Amino acid sequence: MTTKRAILGLLMLPLIAVAGNVTSPNGNIELKFSLDEKGRPTYEMTYKDRAVVLPSHLGLELARDKHASPDLNGHLLDGFRLIDEKISTFDETWRPVWGETATIRNHYNELAVTLRQTIEEPKYMGNGNEPGLALIAHDRTIIIRFRVYDDGIGLRYEFPQQQELSYFVIQEEHTEFAMAGDHTAWWLPGDYDTQEQETQESKLSEIRGRMQEAVNWGNSSVAVFSPTGVQTSLQMKTDDGLYINIHEAACADYSTMHLELVDAQTKALTTKLGGSSNAYTPNPVGCAAELPQPFTFVSHLTPDATGLKGCMQTPCTTPWRTVMVSDDARDMLSSNLILNLNEPCALDDVSWIHPTKYCGVWWEMIVGKSSWNYTDEFPSIKLDQIDWKKVKPNGRHAANNEKVKRYIDFAAKNGLDQVLVEGWNVGWEDWANLWKRDVFDFQTAYPDFDIKMLNDYAHSKGVKLLMHHETSSSTQNYERHMEKAFQLMNKYGYDAVKTGYVGDIIPRGDHHYSQSMNNHYLYVVKEAAKHHIMVNAHEATRPTGLCRTYPNLVGNESARGTEYEAFGGSRPDHTCILPFTRLQGGPMDYTPGIFVTKLKEWSNNTSWARITLAGSLALYLTMYSPLQMAADLPEHYERFDDAFQFIRDVACDWDESIYLEAEPADYITVARKAKGTPNWFIGGKCDENGHQSVIKLDFLDKGRKYDCTIYADARDAHYENNPQAYTITKKVVKKGDILKLTEAPGGGFAVSLMAK
Amino acid sequence: MTTKRAILGLLMLPLIAVAGNVTSPNGNIELKFSLDEKGRPTYEMTYKDRAVVLPSHLGLELARDKHASPDLNGHLLDGFRLIDEKISTFDETWRPVWGETATIRNHYNELAVTLRQTIEEPKYMGNGNEPGLALIAHDRTIIIRFRVYDDGIGLRYEFPQQQELSYFVIQEEHTEFAMAGDHTAWWLPGDYDTQEQETQESKLSEIRGRMQEAVNWGNSSVAVFSPTGVQTSLQMKTDDGLYINIHEAACADYSTMHLELVDAQTKALTTKLGGSSNAYTPNPVGCAAELPQPFTFVSHLTPDATGLKGCMQTPCTTPWRTVMVSDDARDMLSSNLILNLNEPCALDDVSWIHPTKYCGVWWEMIVGKSSWNYTDEFPSIKLDQIDWKKVKPNGRHAANNEKVKRYIDFAAKNGLDQVLVEGWNVGWEDWANLWKRDVFDFQTAYPDFDIKMLNDYAHSKGVKLLMHHETSSSTQNYERHMEKAFQLMNKYGYDAVKTGYVGDIIPRGDHHYSQSMNNHYLYVVKEAAKHHIMVNAHEATRPTGLCRTYPNLVGNESARGTEYEAFGGSRPDHTCILPFTRLQGGPMDYTPGIFVTKLKEWSNNTSWARITLAGSLALYLTMYSPLQMAADLPEHYERFDDAFQFIRDVACDWDESIYLEAEPADYITVARKAKGTPNWFIGGKCDENGHQSVIKLDFLDKGRKYDCTIYADARDAHYENNPQAYTITKKVVKKGDILKLTEAPGGGFAVSLMAK
Repeated sequence: MTTKRAILGLLMLPLIAVAGNVTSPNGNIELKFSLDEKGRPTYEMTYKDRAVVLPSHLGLELARDKHASPDLNGHLLDGFRLIDEKISTFDETWRPVWGETATIRNHYNELAVTLRQTIEEPKYMGNGNEPGLALIAHDRTIIIRFRVYDDGIGLRYEFPQQQELSYFVIQEEHTEFAMAGDHTAWWLPGDYDTQEQETQESKLSEIRGRMQEAVNWGNSSVAVFSPTGVQTSLQMKTDDGLYINIHEAACADYSTMHLELVDAQTKALTTKLGGSSNAYTPNPVGCAAELPQPFTFVSHLTPDATGLKGCMQTPCTTPWRTVMVSDDARDMLSSNLILNLNEPCALDDVSWIHPTKYCGVWWEMIVGKSSWNYTDEFPSIKLDQIDWKKVKPNGRHAANNEKVKRYIDFAAKNGLDQVLVEGWNVGWEDWANLWKRDVFDFQTAYPDFDIKMLNDYAHSKGVKLLMHHETSSSTQNYERHMEKAFQLMNKYGYDAVKTGYVGDIIPRGDHHYSQSMNNHYLYVVKEAAKHHIMVNAHEATRPTGLCRTYPNLVGNESARGTEYEAFGGSRPDHTCILPFTRLQGGPMDYTPGIFVTKLKEWSNNTSWARITLAGSLALYLTMYSPLQMAADLPEHYERFDDAFQFIRDVACDWDESIYLEAEPADYITVARKAKGTPNWFIGGKCDENGHQSVIKLDFLDKGRKYDCTIYADARDAHYENNPQAYTITKKVVKKGDILKLTEAPGGGFAVSLMAK
Repeated sequence: MTTKRAILGLLMLPLIAVAGNVTSPNGNIELKFSLDEKGRPTYEMTYKDRAVVLPSHLGLELARDKHASPDLNGHLLDGFRLIDEKISTFDETWRPVWGETATIRNHYNELAVTLRQTIEEPKYMGNGNEPGLALIAHDRTIIIRFRVYDDGIGLRYEFPQQQELSYFVIQEEHTEFAMAGDHTAWWLPGDYDTQEQETQESKLSEIRGRMQEAVNWGNSSVAVFSPTGVQTSLQMKTDDGLYINIHEAACADYSTMHLELVDAQTKALTTKLGGSSNAYTPNPVGCAAELPQPFTFVSHLTPDATGLKGCMQTPCTTPWRTVMVSDDARDMLSSNLILNLNEPCALDDVSWIHPTKYCGVWWEMIVGKSSWNYTDEFPSIKLDQIDWKKVKPNGRHAANNEKVKRYIDFAAKNGLDQVLVEGWNVGWEDWANLWKRDVFDFQTAYPDFDIKMLNDYAHSKGVKLLMHHETSSSTQNYERHMEKAFQLMNKYGYDAVKTGYVGDIIPRGDHHYSQSMNNHYLYVVKEAAKHHIMVNAHEATRPTGLCRTYPNLVGNESARGTEYEAFGGSRPDHTCILPFTRLQGGPMDYTPGIFVTKLKEWSNNTSWARITLAGSLALYLTMYSPLQMAADLPEHYERFDDAFQFIRDVACDWDESIYLEAEPADYITVARKAKGTPNWFIGGKCDENGHQSVIKLDFLDKGRKYDCTIYADARDAHYENNPQAYTITKKVVKKGDILKLTEAPGGGFAVSLMAK
């Protein structure tokens, strides 16, 4: 580790090129910090001496808000001097409540620089009739903290409590990530309200030209903000084979960060995309004259209804901004950097939190064969004005006693822990995107759903029901009913809830990824924890590792899930990208397991899933989650019961995980050891080009034999015209044996290795 | 009653001058309705054949919002034809839970016109790649309902449930009130967030010129929207002696209405006042070419954070828009029109609701002698990070055990029911206008306030504590804690809460008088009712008679209260205006009773109350409220114990009320009979000019004698230089006797008449 003692900044003028640097424990990553000639905080990052982040500025632009600390007319961007510099080392191993591995090592070297800024500004000193002007000097102190791991860095801003900076409002955060070249990126259009677009693969220089077609304008909540705005986690690959990923960690009471690419056209262009409300705002410190170099990403926070980005009270910090890097793509997947940058578990008792396999009354509504709502009788409904016993049923309501019992029976028979039931509660008649505040009460069941009987029935068979709370993004309404809704769950024995945030946020003007919404999502998780309830939030902000601190947050959607296979489909490489991007921050409730991929076989839906049946089994391993759904219909699983055996067998909590092969958007192969057992499972998933895997079983216990079952694509399998062609092969293997497996286009494989 | 049968509008073209009219039960008021040549709903109103409202248009402008019913590209302004017209009579007498009279007669004639509009608009008919255009016709039906009373009218829009109008968003309501001349008006600047300005008295034509000075720009929440915007209730007087008042009734889940005056300059001017976000938007139906005549008021609703005015779901209605009129100013004060236009009581059990006299730990903080907060140790605080037992007290915290016991003793000794204690709960260190969401928890007491001991102590003396919940306008935070806060109140025996909404609304961008905030205030009242808690909401929307439906809403501030006597003072005529304006919608917690008006006598505050001591007694009668505070310090009342006898004696619930004299901003004299007793109380209050009252006691019981105590201004009393000069005279009186009373400048009198 290289260290350099700081010169205490006693002078009022900024010191030029004051610098500290720190390297990762293994020495591969080096992080340099300096103040430039304007006193701007600047950092750069290398990996094995190759540039990862070129010199990039750090800082925040403050809003001139009437309710901020006195006279906040200066930004936190420049004019800083170095006051203190601390370098330290941390090395600790912790045990997650659930996860890919039994233990996680949190090992980093840290550089914390304390910076001070003196701002002088005019202040009215008079009172009433006699105003007077004076120049008042304020000192403001911030800390920028860098943690350097072997697989990347985290940096964040810290704002100590101080008289001159008690409250402030953020106009924009200007954290730069200057890339060293025109990398290949896997990106989603930056958006304040949806993450459910298909990932684009392009050069950075191609983002602007690709933006218009990258946006699915049909999504009800599209709020694109810039022609070069992209979301995180952003996975990139350099021409010389470095993998770089930018994301954030521990985003709690702060707005979600997007990235805006400063490209050659940024300065000239003021064109806005349709529906956009914002465009690139240059850093107010001289950026009009000196734009960052091309391929620089600048942070862009999600605004509130008035366009501002965050209300802060010191002491506080921003989330961590993370840059992961490696020359081996597998390191992107095995990294625990995001989790490590989150706070330790905040819950005293976690005994009630458990990984869960479930099925549910869900896919047939998504496909359009049945409905969430109970009646079609009214143009709209008001919850307090309907006698549900008297309304005319539409005959398509799926969450009925008979069907739910069928699912409970199926779950009990096949070792699934829970049964999700969507559409059980009144309000689905006119629930989405109507600016309807009082949309659900989360407590009243439709007349054909007997909540007590069904829970009793499930419990008698060793199964639980999984609660569903679609909020329709009417968050105030949800918060008003939440306590009673959780009490209802406790009463009937639910211990997990799937929440949903479909549609535009109510109150109007707010966004899914704003500070207030991020606060809301975490508020729900905390309140749920008081009731020993696990949360799986759909359409909420993309995760940033908060599940370490609140492990009852067992899942999120926050990306394009399996449901899109019924809305036109997703590309075959989609699930070979998500682990590099969406899954960096936490598990996804992707709801895999579609065996009958051509939906028209059993419905009027002409959409189809771009995956083979064997490939769908692989997802239970390649898409890590402690919550795994068997999403297809029970009758479809019964039709392919031999293949369904893998879903019955597969674990969803692990002592060890080894990424064997990985390349973004191409293939992922992983071996995992089931928690508390000697058994291993291996999954491989590939894109539309197919893949050959050669797996050496050198991770098995020495001297032990394993019953090996291989679920593989048949030779002629293909995601489009032959998805259900699979083979099941059984043999006995031992450590050091080699498996040669062929994945079909859009296919994959799954292997179970049960210790004899 | 004159009626005219409507011609059913079977033709598609609007019928010109289709008209119905209806008169008040006594025939004095006539209301005419018609459709003009553009099919615009139009009404006019006369009183004893004198014009009150000249022909004025009615209608709503809809927002082109993506989440509205199909193709809402037409407004609800014109193109209407008359479908049905119903005239009916209603006469019922009801008993308020509390009030100025034991019974209230609700007697009106009603005209309900059903109007239909056919809009044709282009619609994309294709799907995906093949868009096609077609003209689609939609029928939309609304009802406009008029109720004509002897003392005024109410009108509202009703939107039946219908496929073509299920959901809509209001851009603006365009209800016109065309005044017949340049009346004198008592007005407040139209504002989305404050009603605490001093009332202006001017001609309508002078409003624009007076606006800038009318605004107290120092108020933290000023949100003025137009140079001719004013608030309701707006009291006017015509040059020929008609009193006209415009307000609204039953404003629940709808935005609060302001009035914007269309004057000669309206069309030309686009200048905005500083801080304003809006200016006059002409009715989109041809108004650019034909502005309403001068002296026309047009409704202006309070917007949400995005500038829109309301999200509606049919079936629904707007609030009632009211126009009261009389040639006797006393009728303005005795009118029950606003209450009558509200729905009957919605609570099954009202036994726990009771009028209340109270004192409180309050005035000394308002004056600045002590503090709400407990410590000055920190620049800011976070509730979950402070160990209150360890912080350093500032020594100025008023809500301490010793002081509260002193107030309890005082209340018990003097027959006051409750003791308000502000500043009892943690969070006051940095509570207001900081965009701080998590500002209070409403449950944790400061270490020097023993909530159990003090409630026990109070109860042992027959007194209750009155809870205080300052929300700091962080409404989400309040709603998150409200249920537990109410449970805490139930636990310790509180049955009333004073809530507060100081500062800008959180979430940012919302306003005090928006639809969402109006929903919030009523939500609090309804939730409180479940806990048998009465609510007295400060800084909330001006009331519109909702206390009829929810009588646990026992008070509101919603105007410039006594606290302003410590912030520079209010004019002496202020309390002679409020009963004509602010009190129309419901009682005000004005907190009268300041005996020591020169605050510098006991503090460093140089402000002073513009009222005599006798005048302050009068307010307990002239400012009707079921909740009456004795706002001054106990030691001040002890100093003037003979005068305080009146406050001990005076009732705050009434069987009968007779307004004996009234003139806006000049004087008000009222006699009231205490509920369930033969005792009467009379109060007279005047402006800075003094007043002579001659009161004939012809309302007393025949043959009964009364001990009469007269608290009057002494001959040399004056609100400015001799406010504490009063006389107390006792005599025995009987029906028919005459009292001659002289009110000093800024003075008044109070009389108790206790049946022998």
